[in-house]
Amino acid sequence: MTSNATPATPPVLSCFALSVEQHVAHLVLNRPEALNTMHPTFWRELDAALSWLHMSPAARVLVISSTGKHFSAGMALETFSGAITLDERTAEGRAAIFDLLSDMQATFTKLETLRIPVIAAIQGGCIGGAVDMVTAACIRYCTADAFFCVQEINIGMVADVGTLQRLPKLIPLGIAKEMAYTGRRMGAQRALACGLVNEVFETQAAMLDAALQCAAEIASKPPVAIWGSKQALHYARDHSVEDSLRQMGWLQSAVWSSPNVREAIMAMQQKRSPDFPDLAPLARFADQG
Amino acid sequence: MTSNATPATPPVLSCFALSVEQHVAHLVLNRPEALNTMHPTFWRELDAALSWLHMSPAARVLVISSTGKHFSAGMALETFSGAITLDERTAEGRAAIFDLLSDMQATFTKLETLRIPVIAAIQGGCIGGAVDMVTAACIRYCTADAFFCVQEINIGMVADVGTLQRLPKLIPLGIAKEMAYTGRRMGAQRALACGLVNEVFETQAAMLDAALQCAAEIASKPPVAIWGSKQALHYARDHSVEDSLRQMGWLQSAVWSSPNVREAIMAMQQKRSPDFPDLAPLARFADQG
Amino acid sequence: MTSNATPATPPVLSCFALSVEQHVAHLVLNRPEALNTMHPTFWRELDAALSWLHMSPAARVLVISSTGKHFSAGMALETFSGAITLDERTAEGRAAIFDLLSDMQATFTKLETLRIPVIAAIQGGCIGGAVDMVTAACIRYCTADAFFCVQEINIGMVADVGTLQRLPKLIPLGIAKEMAYTGRRMGAQRALACGLVNEVFETQAAMLDAALQCAAEIASKPPVAIWGSKQALHYARDHSVEDSLRQMGWLQSAVWSSPNVREAIMAMQQKRSPDFPDLAPLARFADQG
Amino acid sequence: MTSNATPATPPVLSCFALSVEQHVAHLVLNRPEALNTMHPTFWRELDAALSWLHMSPAARVLVISSTGKHFSAGMALETFSGAITLDERTAEGRAAIFDLLSDMQATFTKLETLRIPVIAAIQGGCIGGAVDMVTAACIRYCTADAFFCVQEINIGMVADVGTLQRLPKLIPLGIAKEMAYTGRRMGAQRALACGLVNEVFETQAAMLDAALQCAAEIASKPPVAIWGSKQALHYARDHSVEDSLRQMGWLQSAVWSSPNVREAIMAMQQKRSPDFPDLAPLARFADQG
Amino acid sequence: MTSNATPATPPVLSCFALSVEQHVAHLVLNRPEALNTMHPTFWRELDAALSWLHMSPAARVLVISSTGKHFSAGMALETFSGAITLDERTAEGRAAIFDLLSDMQATFTKLETLRIPVIAAIQGGCIGGAVDMVTAACIRYCTADAFFCVQEINIGMVADVGTLQRLPKLIPLGIAKEMAYTGRRMGAQRALACGLVNEVFETQAAMLDAALQCAAEIASKPPVAIWGSKQALHYARDHSVEDSLRQMGWLQSAVWSSPNVREAIMAMQQKRSPDFPDLAPLARFADQG
Amino acid sequence: MTSNATPATPPVLSCFALSVEQHVAHLVLNRPEALNTMHPTFWRELDAALSWLHMSPAARVLVISSTGKHFSAGMALETFSGAITLDERTAEGRAAIFDLLSDMQATFTKLETLRIPVIAAIQGGCIGGAVDMVTAACIRYCTADAFFCVQEINIGMVADVGTLQRLPKLIPLGIAKEMAYTGRRMGAQRALACGLVNEVFETQAAMLDAALQCAAEIASKPPVAIWGSKQALHYARDHSVEDSLRQMGWLQSAVWSSPNVREAIMAMQQKRSPDFPDLAPLARFADQG
Repeated sequence: MTSNATPATPPVLSCFALSVEQHVAHLVLNRPEALNTMHPTFWRELDAALSWLHMSPAARVLVISSTGKHFSAGMALETFSGAITLDERTAEGRAAIFDLLSDMQATFTKLETLRIPVIAAIQGGCIGGAVDMVTAACIRYCTADAFFCVQEINIGMVADVGTLQRLPKLIPLGIAKEMAYTGRRMGAQRALACGLVNEVFETQAAMLDAALQCAAEIASKPPVAIWGSKQALHYARDHSVEDSLRQMGWLQSAVWSSPNVREAIMAMQQKRSPDFPDLAPLARFADQG
Repeated sequence: MTSNATPATPPVLSCFALSVEQHVAHLVLNRPEALNTMHPTFWRELDAALSWLHMSPAARVLVISSTGKHFSAGMALETFSGAITLDERTAEGRAAIFDLLSDMQATFTKLETLRIPVIAAIQGGCIGGAVDMVTAACIRYCTADAFFCVQEINIGMVADVGTLQRLPKLIPLGIAKEMAYTGRRMGAQRALACGLVNEVFETQAAMLDAALQCAAEIASKPPVAIWGSKQALHYARDHSVEDSLRQMGWLQSAVWSSPNVREAIMAMQQKRSPDFPDLAPLARFADQG
Repeated sequence: MTSNATPATPPVLSCFALSVEQHVAHLVLNRPEALNTMHPTFWRELDAALSWLHMSPAARVLVISSTGKHFSAGMALETFSGAITLDERTAEGRAAIFDLLSDMQATFTKLETLRIPVIAAIQGGCIGGAVDMVTAACIRYCTADAFFCVQEINIGMVADVGTLQRLPKLIPLGIAKEMAYTGRRMGAQRALACGLVNEVFETQAAMLDAALQCAAEIASKPPVAIWGSKQALHYARDHSVEDSLRQMGWLQSAVWSSPNVREAIMAMQQKRSPDFPDLAPLARFADQG
Repeated sequence: MTSNATPATPPVLSCFALSVEQHVAHLVLNRPEALNTMHPTFWRELDAALSWLHMSPAARVLVISSTGKHFSAGMALETFSGAITLDERTAEGRAAIFDLLSDMQATFTKLETLRIPVIAAIQGGCIGGAVDMVTAACIRYCTADAFFCVQEINIGMVADVGTLQRLPKLIPLGIAKEMAYTGRRMGAQRALACGLVNEVFETQAAMLDAALQCAAEIASKPPVAIWGSKQALHYARDHSVEDSLRQMGWLQSAVWSSPNVREAIMAMQQKRSPDFPDLAPLARFADQG
Repeated sequence: MTSNATPATPPVLSCFALSVEQHVAHLVLNRPEALNTMHPTFWRELDAALSWLHMSPAARVLVISSTGKHFSAGMALETFSGAITLDERTAEGRAAIFDLLSDMQATFTKLETLRIPVIAAIQGGCIGGAVDMVTAACIRYCTADAFFCVQEINIGMVADVGTLQRLPKLIPLGIAKEMAYTGRRMGAQRALACGLVNEVFETQAAMLDAALQCAAEIASKPPVAIWGSKQALHYARDHSVEDSLRQMGWLQSAVWSSPNVREAIMAMQQKRSPDFPDLAPLARFADQG
Repeated sequence: MTSNATPATPPVLSCFALSVEQHVAHLVLNRPEALNTMHPTFWRELDAALSWLHMSPAARVLVISSTGKHFSAGMALETFSGAITLDERTAEGRAAIFDLLSDMQATFTKLETLRIPVIAAIQGGCIGGAVDMVTAACIRYCTADAFFCVQEINIGMVADVGTLQRLPKLIPLGIAKEMAYTGRRMGAQRALACGLVNEVFETQAAMLDAALQCAAEIASKPPVAIWGSKQALHYARDHSVEDSLRQMGWLQSAVWSSPNVREAIMAMQQKRSPDFPDLAPLARFADQG
């Protein structure tokens, strides 16, 4: 019953490799020679890749991994010495900073609110902007040598694309404050103990296997139920329990699917893989001729 | 000074055993042969038991435990093939799903907002609807062989009676998402490490002893101060610190009791058990003739 | 470039010792003979010390430590048998309780919202009002023999100056409820495991060294970036991610400092300590002649 | 296509008359000799009537009107000198006040959140508790001699069953404060000018005609769309625009009905009355055997 | 039964006259020669006057009026060319602006949250900072020649001490935006029509008579019930109805006063003035020796 | 000092005319023959026009007007019978409705959150989707023959692109509910009385003159102060006063401009037009090569 349609060609990317296989999308940061730093092309391509994934019915879950010794060294400093110059001395310049920042935040929010779950597989350093990025994922795996660092404070600035907003929803506030004020590195074991990562692996290969296995499990559930669960969890994070229960009522009224429940139960009884329909987004209304 | 009045007879129950001794109420799921699944009678009786407890001055704390190998296997599937048929194909049918769901949520919310604290003692499997139920308790104890499973996703649906709303307030969000998307089981040790349960015990008997001991301690405090503390903690969970401090001001103005403070201090000095008055709810206004 | 101005003389204090050295302020509870209980003078002096710190440009971080076997035994009971009498029997008396409580809460809120981060170094007992106090700090260190106790319930009352509001934002709710309902002590290791403290030390001396070292690291960052980070983290704790990202935009527009970023990067490259300007609050508008 | 089933017999009522005709329910306060004051029977019967209406598919809108010179003189003072005695001198007594108040509030909240819109038709005095009641309605009509009075302050107490919560969402805050602090009467023309009432009529008969006409119009729309609109408006009142738009998305996914839209358009084209299905609530889950 | 104690001497003021008679406090802006502009002394004295009123049991309501042709021309521009220099070019300077602004906002928030209601009586121009000020009052009366102007935009800045925050809670948003973007004057009749003022009077004398008469009425109610009503209305403005009803429960438990209710009813029956106890704030805890 | 740079060519539009003169942008709905209904091209072009305006420094305010007898008849019904088919019978289809709706809402949210104020000038009918649209504007002017109609309920559906979310923030809730449940038309005078429109004009020409005059006044203020005011007003609408004052602090720290204040005051003193710098958004980060 699921769509087997080959997804349309993904956008051409230079900083990333992107594939979708067996309903599992995989986005790989692949500029290890530059420590996978985030320069303007990185931002533009990440945004394009996410937009494409959002419209690709075959993608039911996304794994983000990286190449080289470190996951990512964060924002590329040259970014701000090139085309973009921040001038905070005038009110008009400061308003422009707000605008620019809103744009950058929007890309990580697009990652967080993607129609499908996101698993980040992190090796080595996860530094500065990379922390902002992985805190926008749903599930985090890391290697034993991984570390997390709110590098922004070490270069004299406030982290501003999500770390200070999302980290305190993921780990105890006292630990988030220590990271944000000192710029110290948090190692893999402490990250596991405080709930920042779900699991730690000896090697990157083992981590990637586990991430893809987890992704495959998620891809075997009905996409509409996964989408509903994600919506409910995000809503609950940001609202009272009372509010969130009411939202669950509207959401369940919308996503309840007798066929999916029946198929799940029958497949279980028949000891076979269930077969669920893809989510096929309507082409953007504004783009209809 | 406390009321020694024998509580009025509790409602007749078939799925549960209910007792109140020494100010400790105990509700036992006792259909082990059916894995304590939640069928319509379960729901109706749970609601009735909670209403009775709410009006029973002698009850100062509630322990919920279960019988058999598993705490509960969650929602009874036959529920939805019997009297109740969900038809999501029409808007009117979907609105009816909203209504039904609101009713079911209301029972677990009644558990959560009960006038007295609730301790859940969990052995074996705590599955699907059972997770919804125990996340509405205050304190959770479990046995070493216990496990927690958001089973709903495994049968193709979104968990909808509280798990997705309450779990992210209890454990790190990344772990809650893993459970909700994969339907994997979380074992007792991980539950302890991430704060889902307060303590793990080797045997069910040891767990029950500890739960009743903890309950006895709570029952030895002034009920009005316990009630006030519970109100404050729930308010704080769902509001800003600033808001919550202000609420604490109104609440403390209402619940401050010089007699209770004096009695607590004197009993401590005299090395005796303190004696506090029960909370006696006024009979429901709407039910007065 | 930083201000080397000797800070104006701090207020004369009898319950505390207060110093500022190398941009690190240190406030020591020094009435060990009275178990550092919180009596009216304690409250008045703490408020004065915090007001002075707020206006002292040289202070970039605050360490709070204590003397004697216990950090603090909490509220001094004689407080309420002396000048202050709570009379809850009339509505007017209860309104006065609200007022008094608001005043006391305001002092700990002043601690929490201080312009600079606060590190609490806790030895031995941290009891009752002391828990209210340290939950208003940013980072908590403790000794191996430290314990935390919501003592209020043990003397028959509801904790009312912050514990019930701040603790559930710091540790899992189920554990906070256990502490609040039972009045049991939480030991250092459990406090570490659940995120209440950042680190545990064998001796008080080792803890103090570490706290001062951590403070020195924070003091080496640009004060305006630390201030901005603190504002962002507190806002995020109490608002949705969406709201918090927008606030980050306004805040970053306000605190972005090209000179600080340049200095941080140059100092890093030149392997020297960076030199950042102090934050110099404008004298309170209402106090200008 | 709509259900023509005769609704089951409504509850036997002594303070009210209740009927449902042509999908319009009509609840009449009919104890004019007692100025329609709210005594325990009033509360119990109102609650029962609302519960019955909630489960009655034929009811698509509710008109509440009254008999005699005044709509209602509010709470019956004898209520509190009879079976119910409020004793605020102890903390336990004050907690009981909270419980009692919650019960009374719940009845007016049941009115506000009723599955169907509510139109209140108000003649003469609308005093004290009656203001609490009509602010929980959707639309208010009144006669030229009507007046509204927050009578509670005139008898030395704070209005506590909804007026202070709902009035400031209906009229400018400065006017609500004047009413709440002075206990002055607001006449019909001012009520119209500030938006408290939708329309003013010379006679009660004219008002009732208009209310029933308005109700008939509402009853001619699809019940599921009216229900959805009511849910959206209430959510929007209490949340940000951003939040409310997102809620609208889930809600529309749930209530969108191609058949209803088609029927509405065809009926318009064919210049006939449309025919929409009733909303048939599932029998309460907890009441299934 | 009320306290007849002469209030302690109010603070010495040069910009204001302050008196308390028959429980009505009256604060008069009395620098008409300077158009009652807000310079540093104004701010300091206003803050002091409000602090004194907060602690004065005899004061049950506050009337604020002014002298001269205009109520107030707003912020004195020389303020910012004298002792205080705003330097927004550095991040540290901008952080200092935040601090200064917080201080100024705190004074108007003290006005808004004063224990007692505030009535503003406005003649002529109410300009810039004066709009910020009167929107923090509860009730507004004005003369027929009064006008309101968000003057800040006319001098190139954003209004920042409350107008943009409080005005949209008092009048329709579209009208508030027009005022804020254009800097146009709103006349008395439009202010009345949109709910900004409660009543318009031909002469200042008539307005003052009416304001004092309204104040006298408020002063004749129990102060604790007025305080409770004010708390409830402010809470409701900023929270959902659901939240606000729950807060009402705690608040009513705290402020319910059988003696006040009895006295009110008896005085009504005996056609005499009721006699209620004052609210006597406990001396600030932190100031006890 | 302001930029006189000719704005880059606006997008080619067929449903609209778009111009920018003297800092005033003007967008005209110009398909009167189709009653300016909203079909896919309308949506796509509106989105493109708003994106272009957001990046155009010369635009300081936007006037939206229309042509023909009616402002707009709302959503074009053929929209949904063409390329786009809504299928609500499956959960996957309902999730697609959510997506589509989010896209449409985003365009009106782009209008509401545009960097510059928006004035809507409305003649004749403002129906269905057109109400959603104009409630997202800041200021509304209309002709004497204008009317507003929540047409959605008349065609059997719930209004879903903003009306139910924004209307209750603009007018009294009771009136919004009447419109939403009955689908009745609200005439110009009632719209004026309840604050929906700012002013009513006899002819469309007079209205347009007034709208452009108002726009010119807004364009003569510093764009950064207008931007800041708009941000503050929107934040205040959706948050508590306390929260909003704090936001104002960060915002003012960011947008305070001594040069603009000086220029405004000097121009006033010199009786000349002031000259303020444009806001020049940084080119979108993600689009840098």
